[in-house]
Amino acid sequence: MKKRVVLALGGNALQKNGEATAEAQKKIASQVGKIIAELASRYEIVIAHGNGPQVGNILIHEEAAGTKEAPAMPLETAVAMSQGQIGYWLTQAINNAFAKNGHRSKVATVVSQVVVDKNDPAFKNPTKPIGQFYSEKEARVLAQRNGWTVKEDAGRGWRRVVASPKPIDIVEKKAIKELMHDGIIVIAAGGGGIPVYRTKVLKRLKGIDAVIDKDFAAEKLAELTDADIFVSVTAVPNVFINYGTTEQSAIFKISAREMEGLKKYGYFKAGSMLPKVEAATIFAKKGGTGIITDIDHLKEALAGKAGTIVQK
Amino acid sequence: MKKRVVLALGGNALQKNGEATAEAQKKIASQVGKIIAELASRYEIVIAHGNGPQVGNILIHEEAAGTKEAPAMPLETAVAMSQGQIGYWLTQAINNAFAKNGHRSKVATVVSQVVVDKNDPAFKNPTKPIGQFYSEKEARVLAQRNGWTVKEDAGRGWRRVVASPKPIDIVEKKAIKELMHDGIIVIAAGGGGIPVYRTKVLKRLKGIDAVIDKDFAAEKLAELTDADIFVSVTAVPNVFINYGTTEQSAIFKISAREMEGLKKYGYFKAGSMLPKVEAATIFAKKGGTGIITDIDHLKEALAGKAGTIVQK
Repeated sequence: MKKRVVLALGGNALQKNGEATAEAQKKIASQVGKIIAELASRYEIVIAHGNGPQVGNILIHEEAAGTKEAPAMPLETAVAMSQGQIGYWLTQAINNAFAKNGHRSKVATVVSQVVVDKNDPAFKNPTKPIGQFYSEKEARVLAQRNGWTVKEDAGRGWRRVVASPKPIDIVEKKAIKELMHDGIIVIAAGGGGIPVYRTKVLKRLKGIDAVIDKDFAAEKLAELTDADIFVSVTAVPNVFINYGTTEQSAIFKISAREMEGLKKYGYFKAGSMLPKVEAATIFAKKGGTGIITDIDHLKEALAGKAGTIVQK
Repeated sequence: MKKRVVLALGGNALQKNGEATAEAQKKIASQVGKIIAELASRYEIVIAHGNGPQVGNILIHEEAAGTKEAPAMPLETAVAMSQGQIGYWLTQAINNAFAKNGHRSKVATVVSQVVVDKNDPAFKNPTKPIGQFYSEKEARVLAQRNGWTVKEDAGRGWRRVVASPKPIDIVEKKAIKELMHDGIIVIAAGGGGIPVYRTKVLKRLKGIDAVIDKDFAAEKLAELTDADIFVSVTAVPNVFINYGTTEQSAIFKISAREMEGLKKYGYFKAGSMLPKVEAATIFAKKGGTGIITDIDHLKEALAGKAGTIVQK
């Protein structure tokens, strides 16, 4: 039986050439597609992609050009739009990689709502950067004007931040599982999922403006789909201690307990490596294999020969 | 065994109160959701919604606020974005209608690519109106400035028109069928589907700027999913001859051949009732039941007691 793998792909990866046109992002998606199609002969694959730069651009357009007749969409709906957008590019890319071998229709993107707790403390302390980078001065002006919260983002500049509540459940989990059982590669929980909460009385779903971390959402997806392996696919082959210093040291195989120790020492940056480490560790503690690596080492890492591999 | 029904819902329906905010459209979606949830006890349901006003607004925002850093998305990607957007609203609405009865997770939106022929004559004669209405003068100025084709739209004003090629295949048909077999209400081929064609040599999928008529795409979906009934849900309870005149006369049950006769007499307007009549007639000729009615008469029409019902 094939092992089941949930991949968390960064939204930044599609813009790694510094270009945000649809054409440029599709080109990178086609490289990803080839790798996925190759892995699909050995693994059952579910992909949860990020959407940081994409939903940021959607919001920029919506906010700049919204009018009474054509109103700007709120963040939660913008996340849904980015799922359609990126999901389309990835499905097409994977389809095309299969087409080379005469195969067809092996991929589907499911628009996904991810349930959060309306009382999650995150709503009182927004931390998730979205949209473009600003200078500190610009950011402070925009914060005043639009009621945004702005923060400095991992040494890369200033950005708007929104709440990043923890994922509790994925509304479409049954559909996602059924598709996997039927041998289809599923793209789900894109951008961490459309954030929704359940109302108290009727347990109705209601959208809420927030961004769920895609690594936590992907880890939840891995749990809910009984995956064997969760991989956070990022820009570096391994997690490092003292990254970028002369003391830099790559982590290979590590236990969940040891990783938690390193985390306590403050080795990993919030908004950067920390959520990936946390997600992989959560999954490892539940009995699965949590991996953090880059796309070039993905195949080797799945075979246990590369990447940072966290196990119970 | 439940009969399988494919519903083509107009994108205009979600804005029938004249408001295009996410909140206003969700409110109407929740009314639609209740009707769908009620029908789901008797029928297997697949929904193919339109996206005219929604993709129009997305394009308006993308085009007005696109920059080098945050480039405007092309039409084909905008269609994908609208599938995420409207699919989200509809799944949530249907989920909430089910939540009332303690049920959950019965709905999923599949991002859908619809294959067209790159040599479809439609590409030489664009006819599908998208985006906002303009005065004739405004439209002509924009046509000049942006290289658009503009046309007068069914007596309602001037709009940009793009090619509307015929749907040939739905890339995600296997996923859609599997979900139906698993008892899930599927939302697919939104906005007529993301228009793609297959390249000659490798049969790779490639997006193309066009809008596929949602009634034709829904009819194709009905064929590919072996549906029993195809319904074009529109603003009127029946198809009429001489609509809006003193000679106005509603059509009830009719054969595909008779309907084709009426069509030849020029009774139905292009861009309005014509594609609905054509789609229902195509489906009837293939042995199914094609219905045209409004949402208030949907239940009765499915029971054969209302609407315009086309059969072989």
